Amino acid sequence: MRYSKRVEWCDTSDIGDILKALSNPEILSLAGGLPAPELFPIEEVKMATALVLDREGERALQYSSAYGDPRLREIVAKRMTEKYRTPAQADEVLITNGSQQALDMAGKVFLDEGSVVLCESPTYLGALGAFKTYGARFVGVETDKDGMVIEDLERKLKEVDDVRLVYVNPDFQNPTGIDWSVERRKAFAEVVGRYGVPAIEDNPYGELRFDGPCPPSIKSFDTSGVVISLGSFSKIFCPGMRVAWMIAEPEILSKFADMKQNDILCSSTLHQAQVVAYMEMFDLDLHVERICQVYSKRLSVMMESIGQFFPEGAVVNPPAGGLFAWVELPEGINAREVFKVAVEEHKVAFVPGGAFFAEPGQDNYMRLNFSGVGEDRIREGIRRLGQVLSQSL
Amino acid sequence: MRYSKRVEWCDTSDIGDILKALSNPEILSLAGGLPAPELFPIEEVKMATALVLDREGERALQYSSAYGDPRLREIVAKRMTEKYRTPAQADEVLITNGSQQALDMAGKVFLDEGSVVLCESPTYLGALGAFKTYGARFVGVETDKDGMVIEDLERKLKEVDDVRLVYVNPDFQNPTGIDWSVERRKAFAEVVGRYGVPAIEDNPYGELRFDGPCPPSIKSFDTSGVVISLGSFSKIFCPGMRVAWMIAEPEILSKFADMKQNDILCSSTLHQAQVVAYMEMFDLDLHVERICQVYSKRLSVMMESIGQFFPEGAVVNPPAGGLFAWVELPEGINAREVFKVAVEEHKVAFVPGGAFFAEPGQDNYMRLNFSGVGEDRIREGIRRLGQVLSQSL
Repeated sequence: MRYSKRVEWCDTSDIGDILKALSNPEILSLAGGLPAPELFPIEEVKMATALVLDREGERALQYSSAYGDPRLREIVAKRMTEKYRTPAQADEVLITNGSQQALDMAGKVFLDEGSVVLCESPTYLGALGAFKTYGARFVGVETDKDGMVIEDLERKLKEVDDVRLVYVNPDFQNPTGIDWSVERRKAFAEVVGRYGVPAIEDNPYGELRFDGPCPPSIKSFDTSGVVISLGSFSKIFCPGMRVAWMIAEPEILSKFADMKQNDILCSSTLHQAQVVAYMEMFDLDLHVERICQVYSKRLSVMMESIGQFFPEGAVVNPPAGGLFAWVELPEGINAREVFKVAVEEHKVAFVPGGAFFAEPGQDNYMRLNFSGVGEDRIREGIRRLGQVLSQSL
Repeated sequence: MRYSKRVEWCDTSDIGDILKALSNPEILSLAGGLPAPELFPIEEVKMATALVLDREGERALQYSSAYGDPRLREIVAKRMTEKYRTPAQADEVLITNGSQQALDMAGKVFLDEGSVVLCESPTYLGALGAFKTYGARFVGVETDKDGMVIEDLERKLKEVDDVRLVYVNPDFQNPTGIDWSVERRKAFAEVVGRYGVPAIEDNPYGELRFDGPCPPSIKSFDTSGVVISLGSFSKIFCPGMRVAWMIAEPEILSKFADMKQNDILCSSTLHQAQVVAYMEMFDLDLHVERICQVYSKRLSVMMESIGQFFPEGAVVNPPAGGLFAWVELPEGINAREVFKVAVEEHKVAFVPGGAFFAEPGQDNYMRLNFSGVGEDRIREGIRRLGQVLSQSL
C-alpha cells in the first residue's frame, strides 16, 4: 500500500512517544495545554443546551453553513471590536473547528510543496504539524522578549524565496509565554502589509491576561488586509466543543470557506447554538476573570516552587498570562533525556522544548503547563522535576 | 496575495451558483441531502445531554483523543459487526467529524498531485471536492444497476498509471441510488485486494433501507486489509453533531489519526458522549425504522408525482432506500438550463446531474431529494418541475 509524500513529512513519532508516556494515569503531567476542567461552566452549558433544544431543536441538529451560525459570527465580530480592539464585521468571521482547523486550512489555501513559512522559533507545535502536511519549509525569525525582531523579519521577507505565510502567536506565546509589545505588533502589520504576504495571528490565550486590558491585536494595525486573526472559545469557555473563529478579508475568507466545505462541510450546528445561548444567558467576561484568578495563582505557586526546587542555572521568566512557563536549562542538559528519567523514575512529565523548533538541536528547554492541575500537584511536580534536574547536573 | 495551486483545483463556482440560488427561502428545494428535521430526537438528545453533563461534565468538555471516545469506538465496532455484518474491533475504529472529514483525510494520506482516483461516474460530489484539493485526477469505472463492472475496474487498475485510491458508495449511491449486488461487493473486495490498492466504501445511507436487512458490506469480504469503511450518524441520528466513523486496519488508521491530530486535534468530546448516552438510553434501531417508514412513503409520493407530471422520456428507477432519486432526461435537455428556469420562474430546485461527473458534458440528469421535505411539498415540487420539463421539450 502506497501513502502520499505528506505521510512522511508529518511523521509524528516524536510527539507520539510523549503522548504514549502520558497515557499512563500515574504520571503527574505538566505537559499538556489543558484548561482546568473544574472551571468548566457545566451547569450553565446544561441550561444553554436545554434552551437551544427547546427553541430551535430542529435547526440545531441539522446541517448548517460552512461560514457558521450568523448569530455567532455577529457576536464574535462585536467581541473582537470591543475586547480585542480589532474592528470586525460579521462577514469577516468564519467559525472553525478549533483554531487547529484554521491552521490546516491556511496550509491548504496558501502552501504548495516547498513553500516557506516564516515563524517564531520556537513556535506552536500544532502549527508546525499542520503546515508540514502541505510540504512547508520553515524559516525562523529572530525573536526577543518583545516579539519578532522586525529587521530580521524584513530581511527574511526580502531574501528568502517563496515565502507564502508568516505565522505568529503574539499573546503569551506557546511555548515561550512571550507577549509582544504594541510597537512590534504595529511594525509587524506594516511590514507584512508592505510585502503583501499573508500573516496569521494566532491568539488563543490573549484573554487569559492576569493584569490589565488586552493590547491591540496585530490585526487592528492591518491596513492592507493581509492579516488573518485566529481566536478560540477553547481556553475561555471549553475545548471539548471545538468552537473557534478566524477574521479575514471576505475574499480570503471565501477560500477558507470552500476548503472547509471540502473538509468537514460545516462545524457542529448545535455547539455553535450552545455558545450563542450561553452568551445570551451568562457573562463570559466574568467567567474569564474567574479563570484568570485561578491560573494566576497557579503560576505563582509554580514560580515559587521553581525557586525552591530547581537548581541554579535554570532560567524562567514568569509570563503575564496564558498557560505556559518556559524554562531554559543550563547548557549541556538535554531535556529529552531529562524527560525520559522524569517519566520513568519520578512519574512526572513536561514537554521537551526541542519539539517546538523547526530545526533540530535546541534541546535545553522545557515547557511547563500551570493551568491543568491544582496548586498542590504543581508544587509536587516541580519538586520531582527539581530532583531529576539536580541529578542531571 | 498568492494562493496555493489547490485553490484553483477546487474551484467551486459551480456549486456556489447552486447554493446561492438555494439561499432564497422562497425556493421549494428538492436539491439538498438533508434528513427530515422533524424526525430528529430532540427530547432524547436533551435527556442524553443532561445525563452526560451530570455524570461526566468535566471530561465531556475537555480535549480528547484523536481516535475518539473509547466507548463510542466499542459501540461502533459492535454495530458494524451486527447490523453491517462487518466484523470489527474497537481498535479498528476512528471517529471522524462527519464522513466528509474521512474523505479529506483519505486525500491527505493517499494522494499526491496527479494521483488517480477510480470512482463510479457519476459519484458523490463531496468526494470529488475533497480529493481535488490534493490534486487528484479521476477516472470513472463503468457501472450498471448492480454496481461497478468488475472487468472494467480490473482493466483500469491494470492500465491506468498511479492509481492510489478507489472510491465507491455501494448502498443507495449518491446521486444514482444504485445498490450494489452482493456478488459485486465480493468481487470488488477480491480485485482491490489483489492489486493492493486502498478502497473507500462510503456508506452513509445503508441503514435507510426500506425493506429487508443490510447486505454484507464490501469490507466484510476484505481479506487483504485494503478496504476502508465509512459510516455516519448524520442520516440515522442527526447531522448537526458531525459524528461519523471509519473502520480500517490499525496501521492505516494510525496515519489517519496523525492527520486528524494536525487537522482538528480531536472531534467534539461532548457530542461523542451524547451519542454514547443516547444509545444507552434509547433504541437507535427503532428510531431508524421510523425514519425509513417516513422516507419510504415520501419516495412513493415522489414516484407517483413523477408519473403524473413528468413528460414521457424522463426515466427514473425508484431506489430501495437512501435519500435520492436520479432522473435521466430525454436527450437534448440540459439540466443546468432547466435548473435556471426552475429556480427563477417556478421557485423550485434540484441538483443538475452534471455536477456529479468527474468529466464535464453529462448534462441530462437531475438528482431529486425525497427526505428533506413533506409529502405535499414533494408533490408540488414535482408538479412545478414537470411544467419546466414540458416547456423544455
